[in-house]
Amino acid sequence: MLNFEFRNPTKILFGKGQIASLAKEIPSGAKVLMLYGGGSIKQNGIYDQVRSALDGFTVLEFGGIPANPEYEVLLKALKVIKEEKIDFMLAVGGGSVIDGVKFLSSAALYDGDNPWDILAQRIVTKVGLPFGTVLTLPATASEMNSGAVISRHETQEKFTMGGPGLFPQFSVLDPQVVASIPKRQLANGITDAFTHVLEQYMTYPIGALLQDRIAESIMQTLVEVAPKVIKDPSDYEAAANFMWSCTMALNGLIQKGVPTDWAVHAMGHELTALFGIDHARTLAIIAPSHYRYNFDGKKEKLAQYAERVWNITTGTTDEKATAGIKATEDFFHSMDINTRLSAYTGEFKGTAQIISQKFTERGWNGLGERKALTPADVEKIVEMSY
Amino acid sequence: MLNFEFRNPTKILFGKGQIASLAKEIPSGAKVLMLYGGGSIKQNGIYDQVRSALDGFTVLEFGGIPANPEYEVLLKALKVIKEEKIDFMLAVGGGSVIDGVKFLSSAALYDGDNPWDILAQRIVTKVGLPFGTVLTLPATASEMNSGAVISRHETQEKFTMGGPGLFPQFSVLDPQVVASIPKRQLANGITDAFTHVLEQYMTYPIGALLQDRIAESIMQTLVEVAPKVIKDPSDYEAAANFMWSCTMALNGLIQKGVPTDWAVHAMGHELTALFGIDHARTLAIIAPSHYRYNFDGKKEKLAQYAERVWNITTGTTDEKATAGIKATEDFFHSMDINTRLSAYTGEFKGTAQIISQKFTERGWNGLGERKALTPADVEKIVEMSY
Repeated sequence: MLNFEFRNPTKILFGKGQIASLAKEIPSGAKVLMLYGGGSIKQNGIYDQVRSALDGFTVLEFGGIPANPEYEVLLKALKVIKEEKIDFMLAVGGGSVIDGVKFLSSAALYDGDNPWDILAQRIVTKVGLPFGTVLTLPATASEMNSGAVISRHETQEKFTMGGPGLFPQFSVLDPQVVASIPKRQLANGITDAFTHVLEQYMTYPIGALLQDRIAESIMQTLVEVAPKVIKDPSDYEAAANFMWSCTMALNGLIQKGVPTDWAVHAMGHELTALFGIDHARTLAIIAPSHYRYNFDGKKEKLAQYAERVWNITTGTTDEKATAGIKATEDFFHSMDINTRLSAYTGEFKGTAQIISQKFTERGWNGLGERKALTPADVEKIVEMSY
Repeated sequence: MLNFEFRNPTKILFGKGQIASLAKEIPSGAKVLMLYGGGSIKQNGIYDQVRSALDGFTVLEFGGIPANPEYEVLLKALKVIKEEKIDFMLAVGGGSVIDGVKFLSSAALYDGDNPWDILAQRIVTKVGLPFGTVLTLPATASEMNSGAVISRHETQEKFTMGGPGLFPQFSVLDPQVVASIPKRQLANGITDAFTHVLEQYMTYPIGALLQDRIAESIMQTLVEVAPKVIKDPSDYEAAANFMWSCTMALNGLIQKGVPTDWAVHAMGHELTALFGIDHARTLAIIAPSHYRYNFDGKKEKLAQYAERVWNITTGTTDEKATAGIKATEDFFHSMDINTRLSAYTGEFKGTAQIISQKFTERGWNGLGERKALTPADVEKIVEMSY
């Protein structure tokens, strides 16, 4: 097991009706900015529940934060925060809204000239403007971690940011919100969370027995509940397990003491930037090729995964590992997630070269758990995903 | 799944050499009281490592906190804290030292006349004097939770206390400390942690699939590493998994969203108070009888546990459940933990009646996950454990 530090101070309020409890978590007298996305919360009743829970606070609103939260839009919210002297933010949405609010949390207290530097210079945020979240779309675990991904359309770029000052003060997870999520988003959420676990697990054995088993537990649970959630998102028990699994998949716990990969995300982000493909689907496109290409370095963990998550108990290590990759693809397909780039765009020729060149231009530190993948490797993996 | 709230802000510093990192976690200029137990840390080198890490701080010491931390001893430490205007405490020890420091954390800021009231009146501590820990004996998870158990010899009583103000600011977990722990304490630690999981798991199914699997993961890991740790406590990989499993067993995570039992602890505490039997061993004495006595209400979880932890996959639910209890006993026996009260004392006659009467006198709220056990039930369970 590797040495690690772990701290996660976010308070979780989980369960039926918990939106009503959020007021007790916000400092009394705070001037609150409520931020949300495209307005679906006004259709499904969550907006009304939150406004009702905020009764007694001075509340301003900022709607319209898009998927892959956009820098230019966030700058408009930043202006409101500064002009209105906001004390507390409440993100009501999925990972995009929450990630956007994390950028704002950092930018609101940033004393440099240009908030873009937070992203471009990878500045670690030690203290941010306090915020809470009401999760409406389980997937990214942004509700219980301190990281964010911000996009800038102008330059077709996605940047990650983070720091110990960016944990939400609290997050409300009411599984009842799952009932109104469209099937496509449910499949995306499950795929995203499942791949988060894979990125922290599918490396090489390091003797972290408990972390391995907890990672497998999350994947087993997602596999068990996926068909139920997609068939009937109002199935509360399935929704609750889906929601908690997504949070646990990336709240920091399972990555502690183990090597992590994250190459699938690095390549996937480029597909979203180039083609606007849903984040989760880019992961499903890249992951199988990535594991096939890096088979030798990952086969022991692939075989363990095949055994414990998919109950593939016969065959050699190589055979089990191969079957594990196939089972992963089948799982994505079972949710109508296509795992080929060509299914999403006719323009895929040359994509591999474009992406590998982008990585080269940005300065190359190596990808994967051994930091050993070169731009040439990336090119081959993306090509295998066509 | 039941509704829940979860927050655990303790920072964990895990791994080889992490004791050297603790100074960065203590406010600079703080006047520190270092507290420890019987002095074994002076033999095994931990004392020197901690003193060296605290170089530059004003440090006072208070040694001699006994196992089952004793109220009268703690009052002496409280006097030091107040007279010397201590800003920060550092607990160096196992669960007893850490629990004792939690009482002190609460008592140092308590504004009532008598600190005993914190225990007797079950006062919830919202803010305590800040403290960190260096764990020397994995078992109780006190290093990452906000609860404590305090004893008072005078009245033969053990009281629990806690509150959100009693999380350690940080805890250092260096698995190298395991190498110098005597075999008896190792067996106790494994048994204690394993039973902590059982108390939060062995109830009835509530559809919390992920919590069940994480609980099983901890038990599987303890079962896997137990023989290695006991055979060779300097096996770093085994020690690291043992240490992290103990912490995860009672840091609050697996009890969220599920019913919990804790009747084994309630009865076990009485055996320690009456006979001075090691805490962990009292749990091993009570648990099998408790599960046999409450078989019908627990058999579904017992069977799931038998299947997933012990790989008992054939037979009816009743047969698997029965085999699961037997496997638990065998596990304890494999570590030379006797599961019969008569092995520890010749004075066991009448114990069941004494304990059931004590419960009655204190006012009875019912024990177990259904709060349905009566003093008469307790009497029968303790008798079955003779």
